[in-house]
Order: sequence, then structure tokens, then C-alpha cells
Amino acid sequence: MALADIRSGARDETAIGEVLRTLRDRFGDRLQTGEAMRAQHAHTTTYIAGQLPDGVVFAESAEDVRTVVQIAAAHRTPIIPFGVGSSLEGHVNAPNGGISLDMSRMNRIIEVNPEDMDCTVEPGITREALNAQLRDTGLFFPIDPGANASIGGMASTRASGTNAVRYGTMRDNVIAVTAVTASGEEIRTARRARKSSAGYDLTRLFVGAEGTLGVITSVTLRLAGIPQAVSGGVCAFKTIHDACSAVIMTIQMGIPVARIELLDALQIRACNAYSGLNYPETPALFLEFHGTEAGVREQAALFADIAEECGGGTFSWETDPEARARLWKARHNAYWAALQLRPGAGAVSTDVCVPISKLAECVEETQRDIIETGLIAPIVGHAGDGNFHVLVLMDMADTLEIERAEAFIGRLNARALAFDGTCTGEHGIGQGKMRYLPLELGGSVDVMRAIKRSLDPHDIMNPGKIFDLT
Amino acid sequence: MALADIRSGARDETAIGEVLRTLRDRFGDRLQTGEAMRAQHAHTTTYIAGQLPDGVVFAESAEDVRTVVQIAAAHRTPIIPFGVGSSLEGHVNAPNGGISLDMSRMNRIIEVNPEDMDCTVEPGITREALNAQLRDTGLFFPIDPGANASIGGMASTRASGTNAVRYGTMRDNVIAVTAVTASGEEIRTARRARKSSAGYDLTRLFVGAEGTLGVITSVTLRLAGIPQAVSGGVCAFKTIHDACSAVIMTIQMGIPVARIELLDALQIRACNAYSGLNYPETPALFLEFHGTEAGVREQAALFADIAEECGGGTFSWETDPEARARLWKARHNAYWAALQLRPGAGAVSTDVCVPISKLAECVEETQRDIIETGLIAPIVGHAGDGNFHVLVLMDMADTLEIERAEAFIGRLNARALAFDGTCTGEHGIGQGKMRYLPLELGGSVDVMRAIKRSLDPHDIMNPGKIFDLT
Repeated sequence: MALADIRSGARDETAIGEVLRTLRDRFGDRLQTGEAMRAQHAHTTTYIAGQLPDGVVFAESAEDVRTVVQIAAAHRTPIIPFGVGSSLEGHVNAPNGGISLDMSRMNRIIEVNPEDMDCTVEPGITREALNAQLRDTGLFFPIDPGANASIGGMASTRASGTNAVRYGTMRDNVIAVTAVTASGEEIRTARRARKSSAGYDLTRLFVGAEGTLGVITSVTLRLAGIPQAVSGGVCAFKTIHDACSAVIMTIQMGIPVARIELLDALQIRACNAYSGLNYPETPALFLEFHGTEAGVREQAALFADIAEECGGGTFSWETDPEARARLWKARHNAYWAALQLRPGAGAVSTDVCVPISKLAECVEETQRDIIETGLIAPIVGHAGDGNFHVLVLMDMADTLEIERAEAFIGRLNARALAFDGTCTGEHGIGQGKMRYLPLELGGSVDVMRAIKRSLDPHDIMNPGKIFDLT
Repeated sequence: MALADIRSGARDETAIGEVLRTLRDRFGDRLQTGEAMRAQHAHTTTYIAGQLPDGVVFAESAEDVRTVVQIAAAHRTPIIPFGVGSSLEGHVNAPNGGISLDMSRMNRIIEVNPEDMDCTVEPGITREALNAQLRDTGLFFPIDPGANASIGGMASTRASGTNAVRYGTMRDNVIAVTAVTASGEEIRTARRARKSSAGYDLTRLFVGAEGTLGVITSVTLRLAGIPQAVSGGVCAFKTIHDACSAVIMTIQMGIPVARIELLDALQIRACNAYSGLNYPETPALFLEFHGTEAGVREQAALFADIAEECGGGTFSWETDPEARARLWKARHNAYWAALQLRPGAGAVSTDVCVPISKLAECVEETQRDIIETGLIAPIVGHAGDGNFHVLVLMDMADTLEIERAEAFIGRLNARALAFDGTCTGEHGIGQGKMRYLPLELGGSVDVMRAIKRSLDPHDIMNPGKIFDLT
């Protein structure tokens, strides 16, 4: 599979054998080495071929994590942290083998501080489990990347999703982490204050480090109040450009929109077919407003004026929870709906992000490129952030089609960079985007490498991700 | 002066002489070595004794910065970046001598992108100059630390101030920086997209690094829309605890308050005397709301209910710009007002930040400590963030009083840490807080040192700040 730079480095079979023996003594059945289990832990969700670890350890405590890291470090054997495996760019692959450290049993809420609107959790808890347990507090954790990802994984990829436009990304909502570094020591990056100027921002360094600097053992999260009122709706536009103009005006006016999602006409067609809806098959915005009763009414009215000014159609506002749930279920099922555009096809989900003034142009150029390349590839975007996804549907057995798709993805990334954007708004670099990072950030990648070497001199922490060290 | 860990390291007089000769050849009169100029560049605003650089270079371009860094690096001579010198913890001191790099002539706006609500500026522009030039765009840069600081300095100390509760800190509002590292190369930490998952978050690493990792040569900032309507007011409370309860409820209800400032009774007395006001001499909250006309009315009404529930007095809301200006001028003059509580005294402004549930207890314990220690020290706080300042007024000639104040500040920091807070919410570590950082973050300080060594192996970038490398 040529779509990503998945390389395999040197393996020291003797060292790995020694590590497995030591782990077996220490963890018994919590070390698993069967092929099915190892394959599941190298499952990369979309398209990158799996590279299996040599063993999987199920951690149950930070102490377990320290022990595994110390054993692996003594033999310079890789550690690959694993949450639920929903990352999209090959983050959980083991190109040099090593130990997949499964964090899913570390899934407790350690503490909730309702007055401070924060909580501290173990990294293996999923966002849905967290929100289910928070329900009685009147608080919720707002970041929603679609998948029911683990909080540790979301922190590690700097995840965001549909409501980042209002609530921010993991960058903004992680107050502190504890992490075990390659030396086997556990550090805490910050205290629980809402802000601090105390030294380097190690919290933000670990958020988005994709496990290459250490294994996160707890995450302190900022929470939001469950809004008193929520309303949502769908608005059709004649063109992508019109829809994006409405987005820009909405943001500029300071309307605190909670979600503002762009779907192109092809994606709307897919959603109609999959979810039994009958939206006009033109570009559309899906919106949600959070606030007081009066606040969401005002926001909706302000947006309605903007939409009209931008040539948008009328829309029906849904305050009824069931109707809203149907609407957002259709949005969340966009991936599955899109797959039905070409039954049996494989799919590559890729993401880029550009300044919102460039979103329309970037999406429209991309649509032309899709047509010229002869691909089927709907587009959905977190338009308020300038972030969009292209889901390329491919016959995975057709080498020529894969090459065409690969060239298309290369052009998509080059286009985003030409608009002063980024090769990934929320998926991370992993293996799949490694080739684009130097094009985006040049000499900054050498700074990243220097930091990596200083904290992990033997490159045992999730090696072969983000950048090559060689 | 014993209040801070200001140490002097080794100086290589031959090397410094060589650097000064080379800079003179290259920069002529833009290198200044007179004592008055050097003393001005080691002016540390509050109390830490100045440690003069050997020379001051006025940079006019990123190319100048690269040249200075390359010359200094060749002789392992320190570089201390200088904005306007308003930092509070000795950040601009030169404990080992070296070159103060004055950025004040790099004060241009490089570009403004109104649709994206961002701008890129040179680091020497001050926030007031920036806002004056932005006025016609309908946008403003919201971070307001009080002083008319330079944007580069604000980024380097991770500054915030009165309206961080709504708009965030420099951490949240810097999209990217360019910086010249110790190797003399200029890097760019990010593109202009509103979010990115592309590798390590170097932007957040440089924000708050206090110039120890490189010299910032440009800053890309997020801007906010000038609100359609603003209202503000003052509300008196019987106790600090009541005022803090109102703050917690305000935040929990999701009222998007733009400023919510706590002043203790002593500070109110000082403000009344200095600004000719007649507020009740009890703890008070100063508030400001931003939004639509209807929005600020709703916010004010919701807060009024909260204040009543918490035993607050009635208050008069001011939508009249002049009345509001008077109110906030009184708040901004709190420092000068406090100085008049003890004419002729010196002042130490120190800051800590705790989870907001602990703010009342932390402030009340601190007030008792102030009384028991026999100090005069009013308190003002950015209550929505749990951040507060104590201004200790001292006879700078009285050694015993200075010792008492020093012990008090030590207890204040220990108290903040005991409440899971930080030794600095917004001033930074500099020299003044170095002793507290390991108490706050333990082994994380070793991680910071490793990063520093990897990027600046000869410790030429603002040495002797944040941590000792020895």
C-alpha cells in the first residue's frame, strides 16, 4: 500500500524476546501475543497496512505503565500506546515491532471538581463513557471527533471535531497531563489552575505528540456547562462559496455558534440516501446553537439574516431534541453514508485545514480536482475552523486507482499549504502525513526532532511517527 | 536585594569584547553601550535589582536578529530580548552580561486578514499601538495585561490580564510565531489555519518560554470582533467568600463575562482615595459584559440575580462609555492607587493562580497572613481565572521588613500550590519565581531543562531565567 510512508526500521529479535519474557513474568495473561490480538492493535481504521507489535500489555495503573516502559527501555524496545484504535493516520502501527500498551482498562474518572468545571481521568476512558458518567453534574466534555475515541488518544492527536468552533480543541481543553517518559519517570505537566505562566507549556507539548514523547497516564480536562437551550438546523446554499461566506460572516459577527458544518452536494446526496432524508442536493450548512432560550433564538435569527444575505435557502429550526438528534445522526453517519456511494469500495479519510477566507476556494478547487481525476470523494467540513475532510472511495485492488488517489491527496495537501493552511487540522501526522510535515513547517521539524531526541534518545516512544529521526 | 534568585554566572570578557567590536562594525550607532542605556534595559519595573547587559542593539528586521544571534553565538555570549521592559520578574536582567536585543523598532503590522480575524505583527509593537491601527477593521486584540506591553513580550511571558476569562491568554491567541533559535536560523512554528494537528505544538512552546529558546521575530495573532454592545458595573459584597461564590456561579452558568475583577476592601479604599470615588469599602467585583444589546442586558440581569443570591449589594450598570471608562480607569490605576497607601514605599507585585473553588479560601488566608505579618498589601484578582495579585508595599531600606515580605511571598506561593494552583498565573517565572517552579512541577522542570539544552546547548538565550541549568 503506497499511500503512506510506512517504513520498517531495525529490530533486535533478542532484545524483544527478552522483553516479552520479562513482561510475561510480571504481567502473566495481561501480556497477549496471539496474532489476532496483535493485528487488532495494529488496526488503523482506514487504509494504512497494519504493522503488528510483538505483544500487547493491558495496563491497569500508572505503575504498570512505568514498569512496562522501564522493561522496554532497558532493551530499547518500542512502546506504542493504544486507546481504542480509532486514529486515522497509522498512529498505532509498530513499524519496528515492540509492545502495544493497551490503556483501555485505565478508564476511571479520578476526580470531578464541579465548581472548577474540571475533571481528571485515566487515559483509556472514552468520551461517551465520560459524558455518561458526568451527566448528573450538569457538565459535559464538549470535544466530539465523531468516533468514540479514548481521551488519551484524543489528547495525543490533538483531536477536535464538530464543535471545536465554539469549545476549542484538545489543545484548549486539556489543563494538565501526567505522563511516563522514556526514562520511566512519571511527570505532571501542570497544576489545576485555569491558567499559568510557570515555565514551558509541557501540557501543550504532550497534546499532539502522538505518544512519541511519553505515555499519558492521566488527563485533567476542562468541562463545559450543559447548555440551557440548544437549537439546530440545516440551510441549503447554491454554491460552496455562498455557504462559506455565511460561515465567515457568522464568525465575524461573534455569533457563538456551537457547530457549523459544511457538506457538499455529493455528501448531501449520500446522507439523503442513507438516512432517508430529502434535503436539496446542494451544498449545505448544518448548524447548532447553545445558550439560554433567548440566546439561541437570537443566534438563530442573526444567522437567518446572514443566510438570506448569502443566497441561502430557508431552513427549519429544530429545538425538538428528537428532530435535532435525527439531523446530527445524519451528519455523524456521513462516513457510512458516503461508503454507500460505492458499495464494496475502500475509503481514505484525509483532512486539511485552511484560513476560513480560503475555504471556499480550496474546497472548490478540490472538487474540480476530484472530477478531473475521476474519483468519487464527498467533502464534509468543520467550516468554522476552515477544516475539511475528503473521503476518497477506492477499489483497493486497483493499483492505478490507488496511484491516482495518492497523487490527488498530494495535490490536496499542497493546495492547503499554498493557502497558508495545514496538512492536518485534527487527524495528526502519524505515518500517513509524514511526507507533508516538512513542506508545511520546514526547519521547525528539526526543532521537533531535537526535542524528541532530548527526551527519548533511543527512540522507543512510538517510533516512526510524525517524522523520521534518521 | 534578597527577594529573588538573581545569580551571576561566568563571564568571558574577551568574548564579550569581541562581540561588541563585531556588532559595532555591523550596526554602528544601533549598538549602544552607555551605562544609562544599559541600565534602562535592565530596569525590572518592580523590585529585582538590575543586572546590566554589556550592550544594547536596536534590531530593525528579522535579518538583524539573525545577525546578532550568529555573532553572539559564535562567542557564546548571552542574548536578552527586550520589548518595553514591563515584565515583573526580572526577565530582562543580564546576570551573565551579554547583549540586550531591543525589539522596539520592529513595530510594524505585517498583515491583517479581516475575514480570518487574524494579523501578523513584528514583536516590538505594543498592544495599544496595535489596537489603534486595527480600529477601522472592526477588530481588536483583546488581551490586556494592564501595561502597554509589547506583543513579543506578552507572548514570551504568556501574558493575560483582565479579560482572559472571556478571550483567553496569549496561549490561546497566538496562532504562530517566527523565531530565531540559538543556531541562528529562523523557524516558523505554524501556518495560519485556526487549528492544526501537525506535529509538536512549537507555537505553545515559544509562548511562555521567556526568550530562553529563541528570539521571536513575528507573531500571528487571533483577533476578536469589537462587540456591538458593552456594559459594566461594580458590585459590593460583604465578604471575599460571597464575591467568589458569585464568580463561580457566573462561570458555571456559562455567562460569557468579559471581565470579572475582584478587589479587596483595602484596594477599594485606595481606589476611592486615588480616583475620587465613593464605593463601599468592602470587597467588590468589577464586571464587564460584551455582546449584542440584548445579550449584554441578559448577562447583566443574570448576574444581578446571582449577586443577590450571594448577598451582594445593588449595583448601577453603566452602558455609557464615559462612565465605564471611569470605572475601568479606576481598576487600571489600582497599582498607582495602592502605592498611595504608603507614600514613598517600594512595591512588589506578585501573582498566583488557584482553581476558582479555592480562590476565596486562598485570598482570605492571605489577608490574615498580611495582617499577622504586619504588611500593607492590597489584593486585586482576575477572579474568573482564580488569579490574584498581592501588592506588597515596603520600605526598601528596611532589611527586616524585606525579610518579612520575602517570607510572606514564600508562604503565598506555598499556599497556592497547596490548593493545586500555580506560582504564577500571568507574570512568568523570570528570576523572581525560580525557586517555586520545582515545588510546583517537580520532574517536569528536568524535562524543560532537557528541551532547553537540546535547542540552546551553550545557554546563550536569556540565561538564568525560569530554571538553573547547572
